[in-house]
Amino acid sequence: MSIHNLLICCIAVVLSAAPARAQNLSWQQVEPGIWKAKAGKPEAYDLLTASGAEPREEGLTEMGDSSFPLPADEITARVVDGQTYLRFPLDRKEQLYGFGLNFKTVHQRGRILRLHVDHYGGEDNGRTHAPTPFYVSSKGYGVFINSARYIKVYAGTAARKDSEDPPVARDRNTDPDWTSRPYSDSVEMLVPAEGAEVYIFGGPTPLDAVRRYNLFNGGGPLPPRWGLGFTQRVHRLYSAEDIRQEAEAFAERGYPLDFIGLEPGWQSKSYPGTFEWDGGRFPEPRTFVREMLDKGIRLNLWINPYVSPDASFADSIAPYTASHTVWAGMVPDFNTREGRNIFFSQLEENQVDRGVSGYKIDEVDGYDRWVWPDVATFPSGVTAEQMRQTYGLLVQRYSEDMFEKRNRRTFGLVRASNGGGTSFPYVIYNDYYNHRNFITALINSSFSGVLWTPEVRASETGEEWLRRVQSVVFSPMAMINAWSSGTKPWSFAEVEQEVREMFRLRMRMMPYWYSEYAKYHFKGIPPFRAMNLEEGFRSGLKMEATEKGLEENPYAEAVRKEINDQYMAGEYLLVAPMFEGQESREVVLPDGRWYDFYTGNYVGESEIITVSPGLDKIPVFVKDGGIIPMMPARMHAPGAGEKVNIQVRHYGEKAGSYLLYDDDGLTYDYEDGEYQFREIRVEKAQDGRWEGTIAPAEKNKPNTVGEVSWRFMPP
Amino acid sequence: MSIHNLLICCIAVVLSAAPARAQNLSWQQVEPGIWKAKAGKPEAYDLLTASGAEPREEGLTEMGDSSFPLPADEITARVVDGQTYLRFPLDRKEQLYGFGLNFKTVHQRGRILRLHVDHYGGEDNGRTHAPTPFYVSSKGYGVFINSARYIKVYAGTAARKDSEDPPVARDRNTDPDWTSRPYSDSVEMLVPAEGAEVYIFGGPTPLDAVRRYNLFNGGGPLPPRWGLGFTQRVHRLYSAEDIRQEAEAFAERGYPLDFIGLEPGWQSKSYPGTFEWDGGRFPEPRTFVREMLDKGIRLNLWINPYVSPDASFADSIAPYTASHTVWAGMVPDFNTREGRNIFFSQLEENQVDRGVSGYKIDEVDGYDRWVWPDVATFPSGVTAEQMRQTYGLLVQRYSEDMFEKRNRRTFGLVRASNGGGTSFPYVIYNDYYNHRNFITALINSSFSGVLWTPEVRASETGEEWLRRVQSVVFSPMAMINAWSSGTKPWSFAEVEQEVREMFRLRMRMMPYWYSEYAKYHFKGIPPFRAMNLEEGFRSGLKMEATEKGLEENPYAEAVRKEINDQYMAGEYLLVAPMFEGQESREVVLPDGRWYDFYTGNYVGESEIITVSPGLDKIPVFVKDGGIIPMMPARMHAPGAGEKVNIQVRHYGEKAGSYLLYDDDGLTYDYEDGEYQFREIRVEKAQDGRWEGTIAPAEKNKPNTVGEVSWRFMPP
Repeated sequence: MSIHNLLICCIAVVLSAAPARAQNLSWQQVEPGIWKAKAGKPEAYDLLTASGAEPREEGLTEMGDSSFPLPADEITARVVDGQTYLRFPLDRKEQLYGFGLNFKTVHQRGRILRLHVDHYGGEDNGRTHAPTPFYVSSKGYGVFINSARYIKVYAGTAARKDSEDPPVARDRNTDPDWTSRPYSDSVEMLVPAEGAEVYIFGGPTPLDAVRRYNLFNGGGPLPPRWGLGFTQRVHRLYSAEDIRQEAEAFAERGYPLDFIGLEPGWQSKSYPGTFEWDGGRFPEPRTFVREMLDKGIRLNLWINPYVSPDASFADSIAPYTASHTVWAGMVPDFNTREGRNIFFSQLEENQVDRGVSGYKIDEVDGYDRWVWPDVATFPSGVTAEQMRQTYGLLVQRYSEDMFEKRNRRTFGLVRASNGGGTSFPYVIYNDYYNHRNFITALINSSFSGVLWTPEVRASETGEEWLRRVQSVVFSPMAMINAWSSGTKPWSFAEVEQEVREMFRLRMRMMPYWYSEYAKYHFKGIPPFRAMNLEEGFRSGLKMEATEKGLEENPYAEAVRKEINDQYMAGEYLLVAPMFEGQESREVVLPDGRWYDFYTGNYVGESEIITVSPGLDKIPVFVKDGGIIPMMPARMHAPGAGEKVNIQVRHYGEKAGSYLLYDDDGLTYDYEDGEYQFREIRVEKAQDGRWEGTIAPAEKNKPNTVGEVSWRFMPP
Repeated sequence: MSIHNLLICCIAVVLSAAPARAQNLSWQQVEPGIWKAKAGKPEAYDLLTASGAEPREEGLTEMGDSSFPLPADEITARVVDGQTYLRFPLDRKEQLYGFGLNFKTVHQRGRILRLHVDHYGGEDNGRTHAPTPFYVSSKGYGVFINSARYIKVYAGTAARKDSEDPPVARDRNTDPDWTSRPYSDSVEMLVPAEGAEVYIFGGPTPLDAVRRYNLFNGGGPLPPRWGLGFTQRVHRLYSAEDIRQEAEAFAERGYPLDFIGLEPGWQSKSYPGTFEWDGGRFPEPRTFVREMLDKGIRLNLWINPYVSPDASFADSIAPYTASHTVWAGMVPDFNTREGRNIFFSQLEENQVDRGVSGYKIDEVDGYDRWVWPDVATFPSGVTAEQMRQTYGLLVQRYSEDMFEKRNRRTFGLVRASNGGGTSFPYVIYNDYYNHRNFITALINSSFSGVLWTPEVRASETGEEWLRRVQSVVFSPMAMINAWSSGTKPWSFAEVEQEVREMFRLRMRMMPYWYSEYAKYHFKGIPPFRAMNLEEGFRSGLKMEATEKGLEENPYAEAVRKEINDQYMAGEYLLVAPMFEGQESREVVLPDGRWYDFYTGNYVGESEIITVSPGLDKIPVFVKDGGIIPMMPARMHAPGAGEKVNIQVRHYGEKAGSYLLYDDDGLTYDYEDGEYQFREIRVEKAQDGRWEGTIAPAEKNKPNTVGEVSWRFMPP
């Protein structure tokens, strides 16, 4: 073997150039409480370039300054072998959240992920619809890597020899304290590029860091009011006539309906698409869209962006498409001006100008076996990997542009997003259809700058149907997606009443939802968010030894127990969904006193309660002093300028206040100041009775508030 | 949004440098029927450098020439963004095998893999113990990418616009022939490096391509004879005294036993290890090893290579270890001469020189959460990724060196290997413990240049125990691994007899197994191999539409049906394991007539038969004219020079021939010509009776054949 040894010797000499030493980064404050540094040579194309995100300065200024939240000398970077290695310190008890839209886990410390846009495949491994390279620490700061690459993340798993706080070596033969997961004092990441921009977001609380991240990316989207009503996506081959009948059936049966989603069959061909109406199923699209608008119902069209050779613009877009096809359709390069102009002009002329209100943009995520391979090339020179990480951003950005330049808001669905995408008026969905995991995704959406809907498709039983409807009503988009099944809200006769009541509750709460979305937009506060962003929540994270022997569990891995099935909805509500088959469940109440949403009764404080709400209710709790503005149930969202009476509910024993948002509900005029927040206050008068006040409406600002009434819970 | 547009425009300009065009490769014949080309700038450190593999020239010369098996103008490479894109053509009906040790699938066309050394995680996605970047085509050629990187493989999944045979776009709305998997005319790969060596192996048959690959990598290992006997791995905390008793119990109960495996407790500390005997459990290691050798039993020691701070050589090896630790143990850099000298000197002095026969080298594969992260650095400058891909090769290579320089063969276990590792005397194993998937791995090992054992650990029932024992007896290493359970072969009293009979059968077949391993070594023919390498096998691959609706199967994916539960063992045997719970099973017989191994009765030809062998038998079939040399059952393998009587079995109606291998069974002297193949022939005499002959032994060559008797089946 001496020749081998000689060979390996030579190679060792060739390779022995020591890798670049880890260096500290040079931090520059770019906004109050936000710092930026360059590791290596950041690439020209990154997440923020792709999204075009611009900071919402007012919101950031309002939040004020913050001190740099980490020991800067413990953050290091180095470039080795054309890849960027990053390291951030961790304290012993620190917890981490985020790293994108995970479906099963909330706590991310101890996880290894490769952030990669994809359809969720059943494992929290980084492959997800929005693998945002952003994490939030329980210590109250956030870290964002602005790179459109597949970033590998070691979130407190790897231990270094040079650590000042290294794990202790233990003898597995005899030491019962041996663990397969020794302590790690850092988050390490590998960015497969010569550099990357790194951002740090200050606190002092985790929610503050999330807010700064969201505001830095433009703040959350403000949907039109109709976007917060109910939406039904109809069977994929429904014709205009089928849809007319569907809308009539909703009206006759008293189910609110604001927009209908048309699935692939609206197009003359799909997978790949022509992006034009099918003449057979939709003989008069212009008339049909108009007619539905007149009934107060908007239309949202399913697409995926892959262009059929039979599309009218196929020849003209061909030079601006990728080397590879998807289902034999061409892949537009939206990083070429021509590619996006040709593509979106077709949508504008054929649909948007005819009154279509928005899109559902499918299959911009994965799987690998559908979309372009990593060896594809694009005319813009953006690599296949970068394109995979940003295609969802690009389709959101340029499709919103169509509506923005017409000063019409849109609210739609998309299957992929990423860092930088906070402001887009799109909600993520998928085919995974696990009710529990859908709730965990809703929780994690608040760490990732995205919105997520636990959409309802089909169910085995009426109970499951109702439980899923209850969850989706307390989510960013209240939707049934019957693209395959054709199911109606009333398909399960045994729960028809209860489902209708949930729809009506969604409509009654519209003033609350709308105000909460406004706070997402102007203040960066996610309207649906993790308990871990709520002060006074004790996460209850535990590592429990399992009873499995070494035969089944050879590394003696502990099992993580965490709370991943309850969340905050808006400023005051805690939602704890019931899942099919459950008759009762536990709810972890944060510090402070909590009250039942329906009765106003006190339920507990800083404790775990067990609730058995019956089939017709989803457990919802209100923080002490909580204020929920409501309106009468209606069949459609209010139109522009339409006055609506408000009933203000107050809960508990503390005085409360609330900012009620108002604008025209339809246009982007709010960006020019055409909106107002009115403060609602509820306090005890000298006689001990509750008293409510609402600040007077500003002059010359949109004002849709009619009469205001008060309800002090419990009555 | 005009600022955004402007920005994206500037970026488009920056990026618009067109990617390098795909170019044909320049092929150079390096051995008969083997061609090499350089794509881009191949790296200094690759799989062949790490393994030190050297071609077995005699075997290759004996195979002779072959024509270049692919249209060279359809093989292209280009380097984009620091990564190498490779493309190889595919015919419409071509099938692909290989891409490493997959556990569930044999056919790989249509799969996407990222080849990455790891513990198998339940999905054939490229993460496995031996993700060999080698594939074999049903058309009779092989392709090997000599790169120690995580290679992404699109094995006939991606479709290009410039294809000469592109898939047809279909309308999913109405066309029942729409498919989610359009036809692809190529294998594409992405090597994350500026270049890679590519090798093509000619046929004309798939087995020829496999043989050339194996011979190019040195040919298969030739285990010592004792390596083919039975091995028991004892409970992890067994003492010398426990092991003495275990060996006595085997002898008393009549179970053959050739080597015993000691698990972590032989060391004074493990996970990380000290690599020295525990003084409590093994007070007199030198005496103990000697004593066991005297009983004809060798010892194999479990290690993982992670060095405890309490190891005697901890301080001296520290400078030659990685930046990161594994279970708080240091990770030796075996690409430094000092690192490997310090490490292996400890093993040589403390164990090998005292008579230890080999090692089981654990945890050189994964998971990510145990081993070093991709941001680790090594003193040699080899990157963490390259080290992950090759660590299994390095530990095999340098541990074999210890034995080779003492002219003692070894035969051990390892948990990771890769391309270039064919010649190492190690068998791969893991913790996955699924009997069916273990058989599929055994099948796939033959496409990957590795050996695999479907080891037996524990079982729920006696039936499962026996079924697993039956499989392992027809595998590269006949082993029970009781590291956790302490189970004995006789633990299930209801099948104790049957288990002993299987052990005895293993011993009786030793002349056959040993000759088949010799053919692996000298001719490159895998001793256990896929049916797909057998001429006349019809794979029966089918894509079947499922009955699941779009709700559960939104992309209408077909389900692949394939044969992944039967295999060839040596030249003549077809093995079809029974799985727990089965009373009968189907067996696909290739062309030609086949006979029952036990009775010699004719069972069928070119057809699917159903067999119900009862609990005591594993279905085994013999090809027409098959010859199986056997010996009497013994408690241990024959010693050096020990004469053994041979019984030659012949099956069926055709005349047959067989090459019986012989050497000293213990040393590397066969590399200097100290061996012989003797031809056995069975033909019909003029009187219609069968007649057997064996070629005379060569003079001055090892000859252990005693008397030869003949058995013509059926009798």
